[in-house]
Amino acid sequence: MQNFAVDWADIEAAAQRIQPWVFCTSVTELNEFPGNSALSVRVKCENQQRGFAFKARGACNAVMKLDPEQAARGVVTHSSGNHAAALAWAAQQRGIAAHIVMPQNSAGIKLNAVRRLGVEPILCGPRGEDRALAAQRVQEQTGAVFIHPFDHPDVIAGQGTVAVEILRQAPDLDTLIVPVGGGGLLAGTLLAVQSMRPDVKVYAAEPQLADDAYRSFRSGHIEPVLRTDSIADGLRTSVGDLTFPIIQRYVEDILCVSEQCIQESVTTVARAARLIAEPSGVVSLAALQEHAHIFAGRRVVAILSGGNLDRMDLLPAELQWV
Amino acid sequence: MQNFAVDWADIEAAAQRIQPWVFCTSVTELNEFPGNSALSVRVKCENQQRGFAFKARGACNAVMKLDPEQAARGVVTHSSGNHAAALAWAAQQRGIAAHIVMPQNSAGIKLNAVRRLGVEPILCGPRGEDRALAAQRVQEQTGAVFIHPFDHPDVIAGQGTVAVEILRQAPDLDTLIVPVGGGGLLAGTLLAVQSMRPDVKVYAAEPQLADDAYRSFRSGHIEPVLRTDSIADGLRTSVGDLTFPIIQRYVEDILCVSEQCIQESVTTVARAARLIAEPSGVVSLAALQEHAHIFAGRRVVAILSGGNLDRMDLLPAELQWV
Repeated sequence: MQNFAVDWADIEAAAQRIQPWVFCTSVTELNEFPGNSALSVRVKCENQQRGFAFKARGACNAVMKLDPEQAARGVVTHSSGNHAAALAWAAQQRGIAAHIVMPQNSAGIKLNAVRRLGVEPILCGPRGEDRALAAQRVQEQTGAVFIHPFDHPDVIAGQGTVAVEILRQAPDLDTLIVPVGGGGLLAGTLLAVQSMRPDVKVYAAEPQLADDAYRSFRSGHIEPVLRTDSIADGLRTSVGDLTFPIIQRYVEDILCVSEQCIQESVTTVARAARLIAEPSGVVSLAALQEHAHIFAGRRVVAILSGGNLDRMDLLPAELQWV
Repeated sequence: MQNFAVDWADIEAAAQRIQPWVFCTSVTELNEFPGNSALSVRVKCENQQRGFAFKARGACNAVMKLDPEQAARGVVTHSSGNHAAALAWAAQQRGIAAHIVMPQNSAGIKLNAVRRLGVEPILCGPRGEDRALAAQRVQEQTGAVFIHPFDHPDVIAGQGTVAVEILRQAPDLDTLIVPVGGGGLLAGTLLAVQSMRPDVKVYAAEPQLADDAYRSFRSGHIEPVLRTDSIADGLRTSVGDLTFPIIQRYVEDILCVSEQCIQESVTTVARAARLIAEPSGVVSLAALQEHAHIFAGRRVVAILSGGNLDRMDLLPAELQWV
């Protein structure tokens, strides 16, 4: 394996380190999946993870790996999403301070999640540079360790433990589909699969409206996100300096999906597996549907990466029984 | 083991027989469960089973066990619930005829489930004796084999396979909670646990408004259901001649739960595990909440027996993230 920010030993160590704190989530088979010709479709239920997203893994690995001197200084991050609550939670488990910078226009449900963990979010302006600046200021004032939401070796290694579990739980799979935002989950998955089962093909799924990873993969350098209006709010970031080289090297392809198919996939997974997942969490299933020809006859596991649905109206009005 | 209608060998054989058709459903850990003092709470996700209820197991075992001569005559049952669709599905899998007698006032969603499986329900009057008579008439006309929803050895053996899986998936458990209606799932569970892990305590959960099993267990003979208005519509039947002796011999206790707690448990399991379950399916979790003192410090698995929720308004209006 080429030299990346993270290697297989880091992922193995992360799996050991976080095991007392996170769930080994289920791999669940779907009842019939409309218009699908894959041989079997299973989902890895990270929507049932602690905090209801895979983010608990990376945050926990980063926090538990701190040496005592670092830990005493606490941790800091900026995020308006699942990583904010995940880091606050991981810090609480270790009993250290967490400073969470969040845009003042974050959804109330997200601010409250952090507050319920005993951390008062530090509010900042809505732009990316506002966030980074506010986090830097906290870091300078407190000496806290900055834990980036995805472009951090310990975060990538932590997210890679999802794939370690999948390969044990579904040894017959031949294809994995993974949502990509900043690329932490995707990069971790690619490294784990490359070490354990290089024959398994890994596809990334991304909203058309936030197709930076798709464009970056094709152009060979990191492209910016051009729009921030995809319903998959967790996937609106561009890939990182650490995650992109791993993605570029190992991903089979990056598949873009429409907003409509993302919304429908929230409904579909409720119907087909009685599971509640968020739009960012179901883009993998949306890719399975919109790019069905790629997956014909394959044994697919799609990562359902999060369950923090704040649009309950996307659930079906009525469930069918068969 | 005393002589019952079903023994351990029947359950083992059922597990083998139905394995190609049904899912080995997940055992999933819950995020914090309000007001609960059990050491760990996991749910067995039969709400994700084929047809979204454990009924697929018993129906499948009964249908696949028919000899060719019996199979050629087809099967018949009466049911307004999950067993109706389950038997139609199992018959479809084997390619034989199914005659499903349903009360004319059954919910549209339940009638449609059977229709979607290619079977036109035979409508009858709403009373219990109407159903039995209609089913008997079909049986006389067609020679079809009658498969009772719960009081049938092959159905009980099939339902027992849920526990076989649980004991393998969660070997550290010490307590199981099982919904009881007619008692097929409960009796099968008790026989499997008695053979595999007699140290595990099995509790049954029942709506207060349909407390016939509770009263029967105390009086020593089968008591009738007095009301049919519990929201847990799958549990409104009294226990059967085959299921009751097994329940009486092995169940630890039968715990009654309020209608309000059943409704709240639908909300709770959506919040705590992002799972959609029906009222009859969550009485096990309701018992865990309303009888918390019994389960303090225990390692509990609660069977989530079905996911055919037709009251989507019971889902929470908003999900909390932690």
